[in-house]
Amino acid sequence: MPQQWPTVTYKEEGMREGMQIEDANITVDDKIELLDMLSETGLSSIVVGSFVSPKWTPQMERIDEIVQRFTPKPGVTYSALALNSRGVERARAYSPPLTIERDKYPRLSCHLCDVFVRRNTNRTQMQEMERWPEIIAQAQEVGIKESGIGCNASWGSNFLGEFPVDSLMTLLEYQHGLWDEAGIKVVSCSMGDPMSHCTPAKVEESVTRVKERWPEINHFRLHLHNGRNMAIASAYAAMRVLGPEDTLELDGTIGGYGGCPYCGNGRATGMAPTEDLLHMMDDMGIPTGVDIDKLIDCVWAAERIIGRELYGHVSKAGPRPRTVDKLYDINMPFVETMGQALHFKKGSEVYEGGIYPYREPITSPYRDRIDQGLPAFGTGANEFPWNQDWLPKADS
Amino acid sequence: MPQQWPTVTYKEEGMREGMQIEDANITVDDKIELLDMLSETGLSSIVVGSFVSPKWTPQMERIDEIVQRFTPKPGVTYSALALNSRGVERARAYSPPLTIERDKYPRLSCHLCDVFVRRNTNRTQMQEMERWPEIIAQAQEVGIKESGIGCNASWGSNFLGEFPVDSLMTLLEYQHGLWDEAGIKVVSCSMGDPMSHCTPAKVEESVTRVKERWPEINHFRLHLHNGRNMAIASAYAAMRVLGPEDTLELDGTIGGYGGCPYCGNGRATGMAPTEDLLHMMDDMGIPTGVDIDKLIDCVWAAERIIGRELYGHVSKAGPRPRTVDKLYDINMPFVETMGQALHFKKGSEVYEGGIYPYREPITSPYRDRIDQGLPAFGTGANEFPWNQDWLPKADS
Repeated sequence: MPQQWPTVTYKEEGMREGMQIEDANITVDDKIELLDMLSETGLSSIVVGSFVSPKWTPQMERIDEIVQRFTPKPGVTYSALALNSRGVERARAYSPPLTIERDKYPRLSCHLCDVFVRRNTNRTQMQEMERWPEIIAQAQEVGIKESGIGCNASWGSNFLGEFPVDSLMTLLEYQHGLWDEAGIKVVSCSMGDPMSHCTPAKVEESVTRVKERWPEINHFRLHLHNGRNMAIASAYAAMRVLGPEDTLELDGTIGGYGGCPYCGNGRATGMAPTEDLLHMMDDMGIPTGVDIDKLIDCVWAAERIIGRELYGHVSKAGPRPRTVDKLYDINMPFVETMGQALHFKKGSEVYEGGIYPYREPITSPYRDRIDQGLPAFGTGANEFPWNQDWLPKADS
Repeated sequence: MPQQWPTVTYKEEGMREGMQIEDANITVDDKIELLDMLSETGLSSIVVGSFVSPKWTPQMERIDEIVQRFTPKPGVTYSALALNSRGVERARAYSPPLTIERDKYPRLSCHLCDVFVRRNTNRTQMQEMERWPEIIAQAQEVGIKESGIGCNASWGSNFLGEFPVDSLMTLLEYQHGLWDEAGIKVVSCSMGDPMSHCTPAKVEESVTRVKERWPEINHFRLHLHNGRNMAIASAYAAMRVLGPEDTLELDGTIGGYGGCPYCGNGRATGMAPTEDLLHMMDDMGIPTGVDIDKLIDCVWAAERIIGRELYGHVSKAGPRPRTVDKLYDINMPFVETMGQALHFKKGSEVYEGGIYPYREPITSPYRDRIDQGLPAFGTGANEFPWNQDWLPKADS
């Protein structure tokens, strides 16, 4: 049963979602070094930072220098967040290399939580809704044929509690009705989660209901925060109910850092760790184009720059070894500490001298087969151990 | 579409999987304090440690003292790991309070990876298989009617690479055939993952195929490690393909610590953080009986005792607030640091003096409704903001 997965596109948010909640004194040089490393990983979409008020976000005060001095990699889309026309104007001065971040579709969207939108952007929910007629009128004016609907704080809020999926659907239904009246097709749906209220069950239910209600929607965007460790499971839940006709846009950050000062969780907010999420996609056969090993270098660099350990896992245990050159030594000694675990990148020196408890060296007929280029197990039952002459027979 | 979830039972492995890879000098007093705290959380099944050779696992050298001195809570099942008859004998001296850990069903099981079983238990895969005829004979002798099949290192190995689900199914098929020959029904299937090769896609495929092949199997056990951050997503993937007729047994550790020195990942191995996984189940409506707040106290205690930060998330950002008394202050100042984020437990003192960027205090008609005991949103479309007189109308 090979599952037919959707096309997944991924946007790396570490330089924006990550850096905006870290120390404002991190140097421009350090940030440029990290950004340039990210460019070499194969990531196709990277947010470089945001053009926002340096008064409230001093971490982004020197974004101009970063954009001027980093080394754009051909083929990579670089974008920056801007929350108002002043920010967009500032960003436009650097395009190219920046792509001025535009939604592919004109979109009606608002927050289900009126507190967060006010705290984060100093606007009200009603101000968000007030823009909808204008967005529709502009779309009609230029003859746009396809549009989007969307919601932020889709599943709950730290200030208002849980939102049932029914509320989300009611909001989307209303937006869809407005596009219907305008005679413009809706093909895209965006769901944001700034306060980490996503769960895989709710994301799966939401995506499923949107698809059932409006089968012509085949483009989904999920911006999931990870304060309750649900972002990866939620992303998987979305992938599994989408099909090859669908596109899923996901965001996350190397190491899983990130957050904002407005949501109430600060640095404990986080996003899905890019390296863990993309490594999962590798395993599922969803193309990412990203070199996990280089991504791990970026995580280690980010940890050095921000001065604390991040919570992503693949950077600590290493990727699942799947090729002969990556398999662990079957006679390696005890590996106990986090430092010793880094042998996957640093080599056997880091665990040398560890306890070796075996009287006889370990041997493995399976590993012998693999070293000869064969699979560990054959494909038929008759190739399994109980029928292999290279394994001892049971006495009984 | 309320999903019908399986019954889920949960076993806390922190005192065993966690402590076995931490400093051997952690005191008995500290361990007993943590164990007694765990007993008060509502967890129904707790592993207290293991009876193994103190030569290779000095962390468990003083397990006898712990078992003698901890305070058993009525209704909680306490168990201990033993890998051989000597260990079982030692554990039996403390029963009660210990329940000698027995599988509910006689089970045929072995590792797909012959290297790990040798490294971990100094036995060979063939020695595991050699026991099968004896297990079947004993089951027949005492007239047992229901049995289990099982596999460890089910999806891959750090020493042999990835195993396709086909290999797992071939092994299970063979075991099932042996029970069939003996005329004993198979109702349970166990899948272990000591080397963190699980992914949600593979777990979902495996559980689905077992259920399709043998519909009478309605009892599943998953022991998932988390070195690649896939344990929670994999547990969710299993829950969603099981139904109310099924039982799913899951294991994990507070904070997500744990591992063994044999797998090659040491402390970077980990398991699903109990607090994050059970909080997800709370949200899904799967009963856990566990007080997440008390569980977070345990995580903090564990971090103090082992002297490092763990990677679970709910202990840092706090649970999703869902009741009026837990909702955040809508006029709270900036929350930036990990320390400030702990306000959910430590109170507003931890963020006092933070930046407050708003000229006018934030107000929220939704929050007013909630404070009055109403839902934020009504259930009908006509109760939504655009039809509410308590929200300003759009100008347009």
